[in-house]
Amino acid sequence: MRERVGIGIDVGGTNVKFGLVQGRRVLFQSSFPTAGSLTPKALDQAMVNAVHLLIRRSKEPVAGVGVGIPGLVKVPQGIVLSCANLVNWKNVPLKGNLKRRLRLPVEVENDVNAMTLAEWKFGAGQGVSNLVCLTLGTGVGGGLIINGRLYRGWNGSAGEVGHMPLGEKGSPCSCGGIACLERTVGNREILAWVRRRLRAGEKSRILELAGGNPAKIIPPMIDEACRLGDRLARETWSRVGTQIGLVLTGVVNLLNPERIVIGGGISKAGRWLFEPMRRTVRERAMRGPGKVSIVPAQLGSSAGLIGAALVGFGEGCTSFRRTK
Amino acid sequence: MRERVGIGIDVGGTNVKFGLVQGRRVLFQSSFPTAGSLTPKALDQAMVNAVHLLIRRSKEPVAGVGVGIPGLVKVPQGIVLSCANLVNWKNVPLKGNLKRRLRLPVEVENDVNAMTLAEWKFGAGQGVSNLVCLTLGTGVGGGLIINGRLYRGWNGSAGEVGHMPLGEKGSPCSCGGIACLERTVGNREILAWVRRRLRAGEKSRILELAGGNPAKIIPPMIDEACRLGDRLARETWSRVGTQIGLVLTGVVNLLNPERIVIGGGISKAGRWLFEPMRRTVRERAMRGPGKVSIVPAQLGSSAGLIGAALVGFGEGCTSFRRTK
Repeated sequence: MRERVGIGIDVGGTNVKFGLVQGRRVLFQSSFPTAGSLTPKALDQAMVNAVHLLIRRSKEPVAGVGVGIPGLVKVPQGIVLSCANLVNWKNVPLKGNLKRRLRLPVEVENDVNAMTLAEWKFGAGQGVSNLVCLTLGTGVGGGLIINGRLYRGWNGSAGEVGHMPLGEKGSPCSCGGIACLERTVGNREILAWVRRRLRAGEKSRILELAGGNPAKIIPPMIDEACRLGDRLARETWSRVGTQIGLVLTGVVNLLNPERIVIGGGISKAGRWLFEPMRRTVRERAMRGPGKVSIVPAQLGSSAGLIGAALVGFGEGCTSFRRTK
Repeated sequence: MRERVGIGIDVGGTNVKFGLVQGRRVLFQSSFPTAGSLTPKALDQAMVNAVHLLIRRSKEPVAGVGVGIPGLVKVPQGIVLSCANLVNWKNVPLKGNLKRRLRLPVEVENDVNAMTLAEWKFGAGQGVSNLVCLTLGTGVGGGLIINGRLYRGWNGSAGEVGHMPLGEKGSPCSCGGIACLERTVGNREILAWVRRRLRAGEKSRILELAGGNPAKIIPPMIDEACRLGDRLARETWSRVGTQIGLVLTGVVNLLNPERIVIGGGISKAGRWLFEPMRRTVRERAMRGPGKVSIVPAQLGSSAGLIGAALVGFGEGCTSFRRTK
């Protein structure tokens, strides 16, 4: 059977990406800036325009439209309850709005849940019934596949691995918590840690790669420095990997998943990050659950679009419809 | 429709309880010591005898037999993979053995999973699709209902809330981990903490209630001292509740359950234990998930028998059969 063609829309903090998707392939994609369309109405209109553009581009009929939102979404109603990047978004019936104007099946889902669906169906999570998916970036997000279905929890916010505490004491988090994983391994916190070490006089190739300006350091420079044998760079990923591994130890003992997929920017650090993460879980988790495989995501930055398109096909909705 | 009558067998560290169960009622129950029947063969025989005794007692035909085991069980095969209290038990095909001799439907399940099923169907967990169940005792066990089904995970060990770490450093645990919740709030650890404080010269009614002998302190004395206004007693449960709340904060942000049911011996401490636990989750978990209700178990020591009987009716097996 030929795979259907769908449209995925991935709302990010900076850009809204949209694309024509068939299975795991993105046939065509483009984007518009998020900043210019902060009101729900303006974003509606921009999305409708994007969909029309894609429909004209497509050689085949479009089967559905899926939208990934970096916030809390009420599914299957497709109401955006809240969204950290879109400040005016509170209880916006995005699915209803788009459906009325597009006359196509529309589904709206949390963006990390969409990405989780994509990696599960087409990426590093294929073939397992129980999967934890993590995205590492400014924020640390997570999604769960449980018993072969996307799991959202009681009010749709399940999967927040980034807001599991690392201990009793630590930095306060924007979520209201204390010592959340994100407050140690979020991009900003990692860079701040590196800069503190440099300020304390530590020598590192990272600073050279940033042209001597600590403010210009970005995570790929830490990766590059690792390859050059830099001590601080390796220590950075080792520390981050160990802290993620510590939280994953709890996740693994609680959920006993078969696989954990790690995506997002810094997951590109590769073995410098993955080895300490895997070692921590292997050493600290219970014997059976500790055998979980921890692998990098495969779909890269396309995961959001591919996942959103899957959501548009109704792939994400089964779990909700069955339980409510 | 009249509820069927089933047999539940609950294998504990000290006693094996067995009973005739109808719905949430235990019609008749008895027990034999676990110690005398440590070999699988001897325990098989004792269970067969118990079942025959119960069948003779029952006015109605017995629909099935369920066994709860404090260890790792392969479901639906009913093979006991390992069991901490029964040292010679490795890969024992208990379900097959009993089925052959009883000519009745038999199912075997982890005991905390059985208890979780009981509280979910007949106790404090009724009416929700997503539930976390905790038992506090020498060990700290847990069970999960997810999307309206018992969740076992990849190799059957899901739900180990007691082995989620409280932080990076702490006491080593028998599971191989470090700083597991159980190593702070297990009965032995709680009593050791109280005794250390008493040894340091702290005055407390707990010591009076134990007749001046610290070795004789048991958890109900701490409850009694709480009611008498004792400071150390209240601090004990406050500390234990806060530590459990800290781990539950991670559980709640990850799984977003609608309810958490807490059972086991020390859960009888009531509000002295529950208030600090609830406060910690309310203060530290994310806004939506933090609204989870945390309630005491309702079925008490019968939960094991009622749950085992439910397992015998095949209530626990749906999840496994559907996913494999």
